[in-house]
Amino acid sequence: MSALTFELQHTDPKSNARAGKITTDHGVIETPIFMPVGTAGTVKGITQQDLKNDVKAEIILGNTYHLYLRPGMDTLYKAGGLHQFNGWDRPILTDSGGYQVYSLSENRKIKEEGVTFKSHIDGSKHVFTPENVMDIQRTIGADIIMAFDECPPYPCDFEYAKNSLGITHRWLDRCFKRLDETTPHYGHDQNLFPIIQGSCYADLRKESAEYIAAKGATGNAIGGLSVGEPHEVMYEMTDLVCSILPKEKPRYLMGVGTPANLLECIALGVDMFDCVMPTRNARNGQLFTWQGTMNMRNKKWENDFSPLDEEGDSFVDSFYTKAYVRHLFAAEELLGLQIATIHNLNFYLRLVKKAREKIIEGTFAQWKNEVVPRLSQRR
Amino acid sequence: MSALTFELQHTDPKSNARAGKITTDHGVIETPIFMPVGTAGTVKGITQQDLKNDVKAEIILGNTYHLYLRPGMDTLYKAGGLHQFNGWDRPILTDSGGYQVYSLSENRKIKEEGVTFKSHIDGSKHVFTPENVMDIQRTIGADIIMAFDECPPYPCDFEYAKNSLGITHRWLDRCFKRLDETTPHYGHDQNLFPIIQGSCYADLRKESAEYIAAKGATGNAIGGLSVGEPHEVMYEMTDLVCSILPKEKPRYLMGVGTPANLLECIALGVDMFDCVMPTRNARNGQLFTWQGTMNMRNKKWENDFSPLDEEGDSFVDSFYTKAYVRHLFAAEELLGLQIATIHNLNFYLRLVKKAREKIIEGTFAQWKNEVVPRLSQRR
Repeated sequence: MSALTFELQHTDPKSNARAGKITTDHGVIETPIFMPVGTAGTVKGITQQDLKNDVKAEIILGNTYHLYLRPGMDTLYKAGGLHQFNGWDRPILTDSGGYQVYSLSENRKIKEEGVTFKSHIDGSKHVFTPENVMDIQRTIGADIIMAFDECPPYPCDFEYAKNSLGITHRWLDRCFKRLDETTPHYGHDQNLFPIIQGSCYADLRKESAEYIAAKGATGNAIGGLSVGEPHEVMYEMTDLVCSILPKEKPRYLMGVGTPANLLECIALGVDMFDCVMPTRNARNGQLFTWQGTMNMRNKKWENDFSPLDEEGDSFVDSFYTKAYVRHLFAAEELLGLQIATIHNLNFYLRLVKKAREKIIEGTFAQWKNEVVPRLSQRR
Repeated sequence: MSALTFELQHTDPKSNARAGKITTDHGVIETPIFMPVGTAGTVKGITQQDLKNDVKAEIILGNTYHLYLRPGMDTLYKAGGLHQFNGWDRPILTDSGGYQVYSLSENRKIKEEGVTFKSHIDGSKHVFTPENVMDIQRTIGADIIMAFDECPPYPCDFEYAKNSLGITHRWLDRCFKRLDETTPHYGHDQNLFPIIQGSCYADLRKESAEYIAAKGATGNAIGGLSVGEPHEVMYEMTDLVCSILPKEKPRYLMGVGTPANLLECIALGVDMFDCVMPTRNARNGQLFTWQGTMNMRNKKWENDFSPLDEEGDSFVDSFYTKAYVRHLFAAEELLGLQIATIHNLNFYLRLVKKAREKIIEGTFAQWKNEVVPRLSQRR
């Protein structure tokens, strides 16, 4: 059992992009990396086998809020933690539930002690505090666990953002304290990543980044972005905090984003990403490709019998045709979203893998500027 | 391009069960066989890869009614037929649409010429005749195509059943005539199976079986059963018609059934089966196993971390636990129905494979009597 380590392997000469290697007790993650979101212990619509063998995911997310409500702590503890429960034997990261409490639950009340909220499933009342959220994440047993924070909405006035940031920082100290008082349950180490907040205020972001950097955690996260602010503001905040965060620790930008967002933020020095976009949009029929996005419900694909994605790397890309997948979405057949999910996740993982290769080659910045305009077009 | 052939390989000494081999232009099918239902060109909730490699399906069904409405004849013809469209390179059988017109469409009117009906999708008006249903099945391009028949409801009075049977027989002659006047589109042969009807009236069934047997088709089907009648009546009718149908041709019992139904009807001499039960019930959380059925929504599995099915042959059976799959159904996660679909189809294919082995060994009847009571219990 040993703490997470990060080896910075290459730095792009013309941007702040980095290639690195994270080592955890469940194996190695090569960065930059995209982490598929497995909210309730399953990445929606895909088997663990396809996630491992076709998508080649190196780490997946779980959500503390969802897992706490279902299947619940008793089942997860008896299972021996989430890795045993869902059969994913590579690294797992759990979100702290902070974001979900604000976005999903009802009647939430934020106090210094913690948050009271009602379950979005059955209306039952619950309390999250920094302490019990650490205990819950001990029970879930992820390799990387997140600090319990407040994620302010966007837009949000300066006073609210400043007060909220104070709570987030004080809660962070309580998270670290609780972790120090407890030990992992399942024989592998757990690493707390603190989260930088501060809304879109540069001085708050700077203050938060300095506060977080000083904690000396094994990795650091940037939260509260991609919540509705313009992309330029997101890039500006990310750039600012990356300039403050230590170079020798991995940086995780939470909840981001489109393929173009990923490449732009890799250029700013981000190493880790998660987002529901590839899976959620897949279920709506949107595919991401090197030549832009495709709406598979569109009649234009009706008689297009070419492979789903000529440049794609997944088994679904060469086996199935555009016309067939269009038919599946038109007929509301489950296989449509299964194929789209496999495709999109495979594409996201390939995107960050290609970025890594370009960083190692020293040609990332130029390559990024070439591909970003294509990634954002509609096919 | 050559017509379907059937080789009768073994006959069980203590029942009418048979083991055989059907050869089509898309390969061999070992009987008895179960055919997964791929209504709209996709077996719901499973990839073609898992269907082939894990389930080991040898032949799948398509439905003329659904494929005619979506994706439609233009797309299927341009694709080069259903095999090209959905990538399934093994045998395919298409139902004629007769059953779907009666069960799904609105405002249907049956006349001697054919049936007018409204689409269940958009209410648009259509006509099916024996002739155009043959043309449609030429365009879909299945290896085995079914006669256009009327499937009477259950219960149904004798007069209705008798008149309906007359129509079904006259339509059959028109189907054969139309096929003689046309040729396959895609370079592989297509084989028409006529369908025995006659509701639950022994004399009508006998009349129909004799009429159909005299046609000398490459295979014969039994329709209009498993529509609500008691199992004993279904077995009685099946036994009766099997005693009349030629031994040297495969016999297909349409729309049947539970695992116990399959074994009982194999004992009566049936070679081919299809049913939505393994896939539809999977989506509702019901698993079929050698020890009976399991309702995966049941709280009793909440903390049962044993493999999904200890006697199962599918990759999902050993990889996932009962507790995890129970959680997936409780949380309404897509992966639950994906796992259940793979499991159930794998189980059905293994059931008929095991039956075949027992027939070849000469121990089928005894084995069937041992396993049937277990198959029907609730776990």
